[in-house]
Amino acid sequence: MKQSNMLLPTLRENPADAEIKSHQLLVRAGFIRQIASGLYSYLPLGKRVLRKVEEIVRDEMDKAGAFEMLMPAMQPSELWKESGRWSTYGPELMRMHDRHNREFALGATHEEVITSIIRDEVNSYKKLPLTVYQIQSKFRDEKRPRFGLLRGREFLMKDAYSFHESFESLDETYEKLFKAYGNIFRRCGLNFRAVIADSGAMGGKDTHEFMVLSEVGEDTIAYSDTTEYAANIEMAPVIATYEKTDAEPKELEKVETPNQKTMADVAGFLGHSLSEGLKALMFKVDDRLVLVVTRGDHEVNDVKLKHLYNASVVDLATEEETRKAMNAGFGSLGPIGVPEEVDIVADEAVRYLVNASCGANEDGYHYINVNPGRDFDVKEYADLRFIQEGDPSPDGHGTIKFAKGIEVGHVFKLGKFYSENMNASYLDQNGKSNTMIMGCYGIGVSRTLAAIVEQFHDDQGITWPTAVAPFHVHLLALNVKNDEQRDLAEKIYETLIQAGVEVLFDDRKERAGVKFADSDLVGIPLRITVGKRAGEGYVEFKERQTGDQKDLHESEILSEINSFLG
Amino acid sequence: MKQSNMLLPTLRENPADAEIKSHQLLVRAGFIRQIASGLYSYLPLGKRVLRKVEEIVRDEMDKAGAFEMLMPAMQPSELWKESGRWSTYGPELMRMHDRHNREFALGATHEEVITSIIRDEVNSYKKLPLTVYQIQSKFRDEKRPRFGLLRGREFLMKDAYSFHESFESLDETYEKLFKAYGNIFRRCGLNFRAVIADSGAMGGKDTHEFMVLSEVGEDTIAYSDTTEYAANIEMAPVIATYEKTDAEPKELEKVETPNQKTMADVAGFLGHSLSEGLKALMFKVDDRLVLVVTRGDHEVNDVKLKHLYNASVVDLATEEETRKAMNAGFGSLGPIGVPEEVDIVADEAVRYLVNASCGANEDGYHYINVNPGRDFDVKEYADLRFIQEGDPSPDGHGTIKFAKGIEVGHVFKLGKFYSENMNASYLDQNGKSNTMIMGCYGIGVSRTLAAIVEQFHDDQGITWPTAVAPFHVHLLALNVKNDEQRDLAEKIYETLIQAGVEVLFDDRKERAGVKFADSDLVGIPLRITVGKRAGEGYVEFKERQTGDQKDLHESEILSEINSFLG
Repeated sequence: MKQSNMLLPTLRENPADAEIKSHQLLVRAGFIRQIASGLYSYLPLGKRVLRKVEEIVRDEMDKAGAFEMLMPAMQPSELWKESGRWSTYGPELMRMHDRHNREFALGATHEEVITSIIRDEVNSYKKLPLTVYQIQSKFRDEKRPRFGLLRGREFLMKDAYSFHESFESLDETYEKLFKAYGNIFRRCGLNFRAVIADSGAMGGKDTHEFMVLSEVGEDTIAYSDTTEYAANIEMAPVIATYEKTDAEPKELEKVETPNQKTMADVAGFLGHSLSEGLKALMFKVDDRLVLVVTRGDHEVNDVKLKHLYNASVVDLATEEETRKAMNAGFGSLGPIGVPEEVDIVADEAVRYLVNASCGANEDGYHYINVNPGRDFDVKEYADLRFIQEGDPSPDGHGTIKFAKGIEVGHVFKLGKFYSENMNASYLDQNGKSNTMIMGCYGIGVSRTLAAIVEQFHDDQGITWPTAVAPFHVHLLALNVKNDEQRDLAEKIYETLIQAGVEVLFDDRKERAGVKFADSDLVGIPLRITVGKRAGEGYVEFKERQTGDQKDLHESEILSEINSFLG
Repeated sequence: MKQSNMLLPTLRENPADAEIKSHQLLVRAGFIRQIASGLYSYLPLGKRVLRKVEEIVRDEMDKAGAFEMLMPAMQPSELWKESGRWSTYGPELMRMHDRHNREFALGATHEEVITSIIRDEVNSYKKLPLTVYQIQSKFRDEKRPRFGLLRGREFLMKDAYSFHESFESLDETYEKLFKAYGNIFRRCGLNFRAVIADSGAMGGKDTHEFMVLSEVGEDTIAYSDTTEYAANIEMAPVIATYEKTDAEPKELEKVETPNQKTMADVAGFLGHSLSEGLKALMFKVDDRLVLVVTRGDHEVNDVKLKHLYNASVVDLATEEETRKAMNAGFGSLGPIGVPEEVDIVADEAVRYLVNASCGANEDGYHYINVNPGRDFDVKEYADLRFIQEGDPSPDGHGTIKFAKGIEVGHVFKLGKFYSENMNASYLDQNGKSNTMIMGCYGIGVSRTLAAIVEQFHDDQGITWPTAVAPFHVHLLALNVKNDEQRDLAEKIYETLIQAGVEVLFDDRKERAGVKFADSDLVGIPLRITVGKRAGEGYVEFKERQTGDQKDLHESEILSEINSFLG
């Protein structure tokens, strides 16, 4: 395509509100424009990349045996009331009324719609398992849209849903789509990890998030330095083993610790390391008060606490609630002398401490020489802390490291949450009615585009991987007023078009410097520059990612391109 | 694809609410399902056809030099207030609030969004002309959604917008896209007409609607029986010439016409033909009362009346308003003795009447022997009637016939309506600021799908044209429990897949009768049936549209398919 009459507005400056590279570069290089907070238009280059990602997704979903369909964005509230999500989804769900004052949701996901279709149309085991997907704009009313395409209010998603007779059948489909997701993100050129995630409140079982490794990611991934193991930090079990020191237990003693507020303050004041102190935090687990004790250098993982109690809601207690129960504030809590109505649970590591310190449940005082078992009892020891860098990997191989990740995909064993609430059942081989078992599988298509830019850029601009690049070749005619240059460029353009190469032809009447800068910014994998050696038939051939360049005769261009494209 | 695990639910009965064939058949053949009034899901077969239509549209738009982009469905109300459409669009515009109570429209069209982008990004004549398009779900809150995909509330549209320096440049792009539209609908196999349409209130100039000829169409097309000429009936000028009879004018006479309410009643009572009576209707043209006189066999065309007065609103006056001005009701109106504040305008044909009849502006009385010019004067004679079948074609060739049409496309010279209201300007070659000139171009993609079915069906089901068929070949294994049949079908399936033929394989454990009926209903162009002659390697090969069938040896199948597909 010719750049002269294309909508490809580039900017030299970063937009004021763009905090991260993908947002800055996609705007500067003319791929997207914001229409309102969290709402973007994809300009022609952006749309081309979106389509390439879409086609990769579609290809792999089709290969995995899923059928594409398309459901409406407008969804009647009745369906969401059946599933229960009308009341639980919260303000992120975009809601509206039609002219007859009927309530609708704008699809954030489509579990309700697909479940209603399947319950009406599929009633025999013969039609199961069944997997369908769609690629469609979704809506979510983020409180604070930010980071460009990473957290928008209207975004392109691939969502898939599967329906099964048995959990074994769900496992098979899950495995297939898990592999398809790996293929998709690999084909997009991404460095990613499939991460064990929290199945949350939906009653699901397994779930994995596909995370693109990036400093701007909002999630922390704990991964093994030697294997494929990776988990959302919330989900990684701690398999570290502990040993008691051989120190003799000393006599419990209460000491004054005036104005020592933090664990570090107290440790410094008492002259021991953080790991020799006991940290006690008061949680409300559903309606119960629970004092959670960990080592001073560990952090309580509230997801593990939630699972321990099989609870719906876990929150830190307020200082007021804490003081009412314990007669002491946050800084002085400890497991000794706790009222009966408060549970004490402790992380495994606590069990092995000798002569530790802890808050005395009296403002300004701590105990020293605390020995678990002797000085206090707990209701249960369990794995209650976050894994840390340096811990052994939960799969038994290697050591844990942390990375930040951008969630681009999610596979989820839903189980019967929707099918039970919405009565999606089928007759099995014996004519008996059963509830269907479901899985759901999402990919953030527009978010993937942004994640690619986070991993593929340099100081000059974007460095697209070939499979998702808006074009293969950026052809620059440096001086279109020069006949030799213009003619050779036109000739090469026609040749490449004929050969099926996707080429963007910078035929603008702009200075060479502007063309080079724009070309680097836009980031098309190959650049062919027609300049001073046009008369001899020579052009400059440059790879955007490596910067490798060489002069080529026009007759060599096509084979060079083909060898690059593979 | 294998039908056994595909979501392809067929029905033997028409859905109760489906009035037209495309609605009935698309539901019955498992292409779509309604989720709520006017909201449809496209099941896998429906989505495949949508994609084929989309790809045809995309291909022709790209060839015409338009660039694809994607704008958000959610549009801030501020933009619509700039164009003025927030207040004029009416209840068809879906409106909503976000969590911060900001107002949004769900895109019915995207003139506002694209104009805001272009005014921000394009400011020089060097970037003009520019044409962009998108294919996207649109929203329109129809008062009474009906006819399945023909009048839905969420529907797939291709909308394009062009920006220009001059009307000549707009004309060129309009012409290019006009041709592209013809290509698109031809490739879809449709019998259509490009019809001159009303440019309405937008201040536009030329506009054409692309109409698929169909009895269920809501618009009437007047077309020439010998040329390409076609116009929306509202827009066709009457070029008929009239002559006076050589009868002598007789003396005007008032006669009693008790209980004669209609033109036909009066003509019968007075013993003359309809064309010898004068019809007078009272209109409100903006705030003015206008009595419009036509021959009794002609109908007033209010669009022509509107253009005559260059008016904003034209409506029939109420009986109350009429009686107040004329002292007579609807049945007795006439042009003789009309108060000065009421304009009289008359259709050209009236001028040539001799000894006609007309209402006497007195209930129960008519005049006879009325002679225009002698008995009444008019402010203006003009072309004010609808064209009729049998009239000469306005292009001077052939005779007018009528047909009903489904509007599937629209090309429109917008002019400066949006660019003036929204300040979209550019600097011309002399550095002078000018307002851009715009065109817009729509195609109802989902509506096209329905229009295809309206033209391509028979008593058994749909008969898809090959270019948009969900698959090329429907392969039926009549008895999958029979090893020979199953094995041969599987072998043919693999061969066809390898050869890139799109094949749907009915591998279900169903009776032959069910398979044949479903296959006819779904309407894939070629059917290959593996049945009793499987042992000899013979199958039945049948064309869906013609019903032609023959037995083929398996070795001949591929070449036969390729010769059919062309």
